Amino acid sequence: MTSLPLSSSSLDRDAGTTLPDFDAILAAAARIAPHAHHTPVLRSRALDALAGCELLFKAEHLQRAGAFKFRGACNAVWSLTPAQAARGVVTHSSGNHGAALALAARTRGIACHVVVPEQAVAAKLAAIQAYGAVLHRCAPTLAAREAMCAQVQAQTGAELVHPYTDARVIAGQGTAALELLNANGHALDCIVTPVGGGGLLSGTAIAAKATSASIRVFGAEPTGAADAYESLARGERVDTLVPDTVCDGLRGLLGEPNFQLLRRHQVEVLLADDSATARAMRLMWERTKQLVEPSSAVALAVVLGNRERFAGQRVGIVLSGGNVDLDAIATLLAKAR
Amino acid sequence: MTSLPLSSSSLDRDAGTTLPDFDAILAAAARIAPHAHHTPVLRSRALDALAGCELLFKAEHLQRAGAFKFRGACNAVWSLTPAQAARGVVTHSSGNHGAALALAARTRGIACHVVVPEQAVAAKLAAIQAYGAVLHRCAPTLAAREAMCAQVQAQTGAELVHPYTDARVIAGQGTAALELLNANGHALDCIVTPVGGGGLLSGTAIAAKATSASIRVFGAEPTGAADAYESLARGERVDTLVPDTVCDGLRGLLGEPNFQLLRRHQVEVLLADDSATARAMRLMWERTKQLVEPSSAVALAVVLGNRERFAGQRVGIVLSGGNVDLDAIATLLAKAR
Repeated sequence: MTSLPLSSSSLDRDAGTTLPDFDAILAAAARIAPHAHHTPVLRSRALDALAGCELLFKAEHLQRAGAFKFRGACNAVWSLTPAQAARGVVTHSSGNHGAALALAARTRGIACHVVVPEQAVAAKLAAIQAYGAVLHRCAPTLAAREAMCAQVQAQTGAELVHPYTDARVIAGQGTAALELLNANGHALDCIVTPVGGGGLLSGTAIAAKATSASIRVFGAEPTGAADAYESLARGERVDTLVPDTVCDGLRGLLGEPNFQLLRRHQVEVLLADDSATARAMRLMWERTKQLVEPSSAVALAVVLGNRERFAGQRVGIVLSGGNVDLDAIATLLAKAR
Repeated sequence: MTSLPLSSSSLDRDAGTTLPDFDAILAAAARIAPHAHHTPVLRSRALDALAGCELLFKAEHLQRAGAFKFRGACNAVWSLTPAQAARGVVTHSSGNHGAALALAARTRGIACHVVVPEQAVAAKLAAIQAYGAVLHRCAPTLAAREAMCAQVQAQTGAELVHPYTDARVIAGQGTAALELLNANGHALDCIVTPVGGGGLLSGTAIAAKATSASIRVFGAEPTGAADAYESLARGERVDTLVPDTVCDGLRGLLGEPNFQLLRRHQVEVLLADDSATARAMRLMWERTKQLVEPSSAVALAVVLGNRERFAGQRVGIVLSGGNVDLDAIATLLAKAR
């Protein structure tokens, strides 16, 4: 599989060959199979009736470490040569990707370094440490984060695994959609995933379009972090937005390779505000008893908010993760009233 | 299948033939198969490590109407003769049994009457009504409830389906354990279910002891509603306790036939206080992303609180329901700190 330059700013926009393709997703599926869960597809008659369409939920909140992120991290870790692997991996993410990379590294028995901002939530850091990663604290700025990453790389030779621009990560994330597309007797009409940095959505788009010429691929994005929506509307990547949303997994800005892939595959982004997302999350909890996080529920929120687009169709939704901040739960549910 | 007098006080204590047996559970399994979900068995490496034993969770929170109660209600409804069915069913329960009976009646297209106390939670009543049942409000006393039930029976000829003393209900509840016992290549060493009125636990005991001579059957009961524990300790049924627990599904007092069945099958009851139950619930949410209610989590709480009893064993746990009161969630989680 071809590999992508690790900094999106250094990427040649015309170098299409550096972007992952469907073969990369198929290879990723085989590579991660011994380590990742093949998650179930869930149905709910009550939600189908509410939405006016057939919903098929790919349960990535049941993935190891509680999110689809394990797929991409696992593909990256197991793509390394033995010599690379011996030097370990490094990333900067205090969220699901940090935990996923730590666990993926543990499946291969290699070192994992995670650069985290000083104000990160203690519970999330504890989860990353519990998987055996070494934490490196830095000031909460992009510059400090990149400097610390560079320092760890210089000291250890560790391989940087970016949360969403890394081609190995994008290919790994695409395996969730691949399983969903292969799971059902009947073809899907649409597939919807949340979009933050765009790793999941771009991998999904590659898998979907390779499987069906007519399938429509939608990203679901919080109104308060609508950079992917704006980027596609303007035809150029918006990288200046300051996100404001309860969807903590979707605050990352769309990556450059991700933007290219969304354009190439005619992906459309739909928006939902945080109240609609909180209501969708509550519905998921009540009707399916599945504890999905707000960053997952946004996908159901856009389907419920755009009924005419999905009426009578067979709609796949990737439930991306279940790492809900239970200490902030009352606040989240209050938004759903 | 033999049927049990519907009022537990009128039951002849020596009339063993009026209690349901294993054949009744097998018949119930066949009777409800077209209507009830065959729920999955869930595993969690993280919880196995924490508990020091192998846990197999029977996911009845994913049952229709969100609890195992649908099994017993469905068996009762589909056991009626056509003439009985035409007159409908009646019960008094504003909780999971009321909703379950309403949905079960709907699967057969018959009338369902539910007697509810005036102070019942509005959201629960809405759920029962949404399944098409007729609500009958009464004062919040046992006398008022029984009077209203008698009045509905007199007016309609509806069949009373008691939440846990009805033999058809006990047999139906036993089908969850039957599926769990049949689901695995290796035999279970123990099986643990919550106990309130004892419908689930007594049905489980019948199924377990018929399947394995050596299996141990445990009830999990809140410290604040320890009437089953006390009844077994004293050798006579305690029917005067005033329950005080967050486990709203376990406030019912142990029924007479249920008491007899627990004694006959050497069932042991273990206790957990509400803090331990809330912590177990939070663990379930965090580690398995399954939204189980406190009345379910008490089973994991007793396993975690009695490690020496279960060390290294293969332990089946029936996750009885997932109908969490999301408006009271902050209070519940505060108990888990």
